[in-house]
Amino acid sequence: MADITKRSEDYSRWYQDVIAAAELAENSPVRGCMVIRPNGYAIWESMQRQLDDRFKELGHVNAYFPLLIPKSFLAKEAQHVEGFAKECAIVTHSRLMTVVRDGKVTVEPDPASKLEEELIIRPTSETVIWNQYRKWIMSYRDLPLLINQWANVMRWEMRTRLFLRTTEFLWQEGHTAHATAEEARAETLQMLECYRWFAEDILAMPVVCGAKTPRERFAGAVETFSIEAMMQDNKALQAGTSHDLGQNFARAFDVKFQDAAGGQDYVWATSWGASTRLIGALIMCHSDDNGLVLPPRIAQRKVVIVPIWRNDDERALVMAKAAELRAALRPVAGLVHVDDRDNMRPGWKYGEWERKGMPIRIELGPRDVAEDKCVLVTRHDGQKFPTPLAGLAEAVAGHLERMQSELYAAAVARRTANTHRLETWGEFLALYNGAGGFAHCHHCGQDACEAAIQDETKVTIRNIPLGTPNEAGACIRCGQPSGRRVLFAQSY
Amino acid sequence: MADITKRSEDYSRWYQDVIAAAELAENSPVRGCMVIRPNGYAIWESMQRQLDDRFKELGHVNAYFPLLIPKSFLAKEAQHVEGFAKECAIVTHSRLMTVVRDGKVTVEPDPASKLEEELIIRPTSETVIWNQYRKWIMSYRDLPLLINQWANVMRWEMRTRLFLRTTEFLWQEGHTAHATAEEARAETLQMLECYRWFAEDILAMPVVCGAKTPRERFAGAVETFSIEAMMQDNKALQAGTSHDLGQNFARAFDVKFQDAAGGQDYVWATSWGASTRLIGALIMCHSDDNGLVLPPRIAQRKVVIVPIWRNDDERALVMAKAAELRAALRPVAGLVHVDDRDNMRPGWKYGEWERKGMPIRIELGPRDVAEDKCVLVTRHDGQKFPTPLAGLAEAVAGHLERMQSELYAAAVARRTANTHRLETWGEFLALYNGAGGFAHCHHCGQDACEAAIQDETKVTIRNIPLGTPNEAGACIRCGQPSGRRVLFAQSY
Repeated sequence: MADITKRSEDYSRWYQDVIAAAELAENSPVRGCMVIRPNGYAIWESMQRQLDDRFKELGHVNAYFPLLIPKSFLAKEAQHVEGFAKECAIVTHSRLMTVVRDGKVTVEPDPASKLEEELIIRPTSETVIWNQYRKWIMSYRDLPLLINQWANVMRWEMRTRLFLRTTEFLWQEGHTAHATAEEARAETLQMLECYRWFAEDILAMPVVCGAKTPRERFAGAVETFSIEAMMQDNKALQAGTSHDLGQNFARAFDVKFQDAAGGQDYVWATSWGASTRLIGALIMCHSDDNGLVLPPRIAQRKVVIVPIWRNDDERALVMAKAAELRAALRPVAGLVHVDDRDNMRPGWKYGEWERKGMPIRIELGPRDVAEDKCVLVTRHDGQKFPTPLAGLAEAVAGHLERMQSELYAAAVARRTANTHRLETWGEFLALYNGAGGFAHCHHCGQDACEAAIQDETKVTIRNIPLGTPNEAGACIRCGQPSGRRVLFAQSY
Repeated sequence: MADITKRSEDYSRWYQDVIAAAELAENSPVRGCMVIRPNGYAIWESMQRQLDDRFKELGHVNAYFPLLIPKSFLAKEAQHVEGFAKECAIVTHSRLMTVVRDGKVTVEPDPASKLEEELIIRPTSETVIWNQYRKWIMSYRDLPLLINQWANVMRWEMRTRLFLRTTEFLWQEGHTAHATAEEARAETLQMLECYRWFAEDILAMPVVCGAKTPRERFAGAVETFSIEAMMQDNKALQAGTSHDLGQNFARAFDVKFQDAAGGQDYVWATSWGASTRLIGALIMCHSDDNGLVLPPRIAQRKVVIVPIWRNDDERALVMAKAAELRAALRPVAGLVHVDDRDNMRPGWKYGEWERKGMPIRIELGPRDVAEDKCVLVTRHDGQKFPTPLAGLAEAVAGHLERMQSELYAAAVARRTANTHRLETWGEFLALYNGAGGFAHCHHCGQDACEAAIQDETKVTIRNIPLGTPNEAGACIRCGQPSGRRVLFAQSY
């Protein structure tokens, strides 16, 4: 087992090391495409289950649309194609043929199978979905249409990082259709709130909800909202977006509906998505120099029992007790794993479960059994609690709750300590040449000024936080008048 | 609402009509790629949930491997590439560029973005997975490796049909690695049994489990097993396959392990899959001239309450009672839908729920409420049961059970009536020029003879049923000696 680089030494190496040590994912032979290993995929399944349940409670249903999009579809919404054309995987042929070249047998695309129109692997599905919605929406009675899709998408990335930026990623994309602009906006904000709830209450990761500047909008949106989380290196990570698409896609795909009064209008749209990027955020938000740390609500398995024995009699004794405890813990902790591998010493197992982020470890030896107690260890703080077996289920439930809220509190405290209100360009440069962090500053709202800040400092406006009060001020960089503060940060 | 063609008139049209009427799926602008609509996707979700739970009970975990496979990987296993080369979607470029042609602006693949090595959209994932397993498997301690993946795959099909044969489809593919040939064979048969259980106990669709002939084996397998179901037109549909891959992929990707004694050997493999094709099988097995029929165990929603009213007072009365019943039914029927649309008459709603395959419909009017009863209608037989509200939950539970077992019994009876033991070629031709069906016949086991039968009659050997006794006989076509019977049928 390779060591994990310390965060203080090399944050980026630390991140990769944690992913490797916890066996979450790895690179594949196809550049930028990752393999999500079982431990990583278990996190995604837990995310899927909890988000999906919430989407359905809010009235959405799931569907599935094709992976491939005709080239011409992308081109129908001008900003949309501009946003995605430069990072598209393009399918051009439908058949391989065997070729002998320099005496070697190889396979090549069969020229006879060249497609009439090239197909794009979906970078996002607005176009193919709105083309279908045209057939499904006739009147206001067909609205709202509230559909979500769980799918893989592909954006050809040059600089990739596991989970954070990969050529292929998994996500959900909601695509809704509404009769009014107000209803579409309400849906956009409702789904933003859904992501906030998921990030804060389940992932224990505080986020700032806000509107993107026009420069950072989704290609084809009227308004984009995001949730932004702070990582341990004080950079921001956009962890979910919700777009008010206005009538842009309805116009591009000619989707009109008859309203109750008999009039005709284009349909109003939203789309919203969260992806396997959330796993990267989760790792970076809570993990430490010993490996992965998982908030209990997102961990598929929350407790491991490590039995300790020196001979067969002891083994029988502790394994019998472990089976009892496993049953007793089921109601509060779900499926409990008993690590009965006999080719590995307990200390080695402790290290492995620590690296893999198991929230609670229970150490159980023959003397513990004799004394009706065990040692309970909580992953996030490494604390050891000698615990009577009689009240173990209650103790576990309590520690899981404590862990969830302490992880959240720690992330909030870290964010608070690294969030600033800055007034001058000198302060701004000092912050971002130093520790970095979130900065609430005045900005003039000019695209050129925003671009210049990014060019000079790599700092961007993450969003304009919801509920930001009006406040007269001067742009942090150019000094022109500003009506409110925005949130700056370096970002992933 | 268009009428549904009768099965007796045009079976193939009937199938399409049922899919359209129940809003299960439709064709997309990309040839052969379907859109799975929410009603169809709900069936897939229910299939996924139940299969996935079972896979996990059997010790499997999920992971995710890349969509794209380097061309050269496919070529590593000779039979494998031969099996899939002719139906591959090939990615050749990674960028679109804007081009002005004849004064029109269009987008085209950017020649500068041509890939060094073309990438194939996975038709199945053995190659990319075994390439990864090489890194994960060192010793017998790493075995067995029991991984499943839920994914989309693509096989370029020329003649497509919704669900049954589509260019893109959704499936699960299990890929396991074992230390011995015996263990791999046991896993292959265990997963075949898992599919049998799912088909028979959940989908109420009887199947024949058996081994494929070499001609029909998966490309790269040592032995392929399948489950074969009979549709209402007496054709067979292969509803799941499980492959013993021997050491073929381990050799192709050089995956060796150290055994307990310190020796080295190639790893033994299996793979097994079931796809959205199952939805097609489900439709064809149970549905009728009025639309979709769903066995209750696979239906995501099992009961709809249709309230009946003529004025606001009556509406208030029946809606209040409907809400009560909804709560009372939750434990036995899950989430019950109350169809309170007020722009549609009850009779129209009945027809819609019939077409959509809702297992139980409860009709509830003001007089019913006054008399503490309702009318319960079971979809599969159209029977109406005046039912006291007091015992409604028990009645519903009973009808759901009855429906599940009656659907299964009907499918078994239909299959029995259309399964034959034939001895002569004349009988064989008579059967397949007539009603068709399953035929247990002797066959010599020669590939050329099997091919000739297929060419002449379109009838194929579906499988050699497990447990077929040894029995001396003469090949149904060529008269050469045969040691046992095999299962013939026309198929989808």
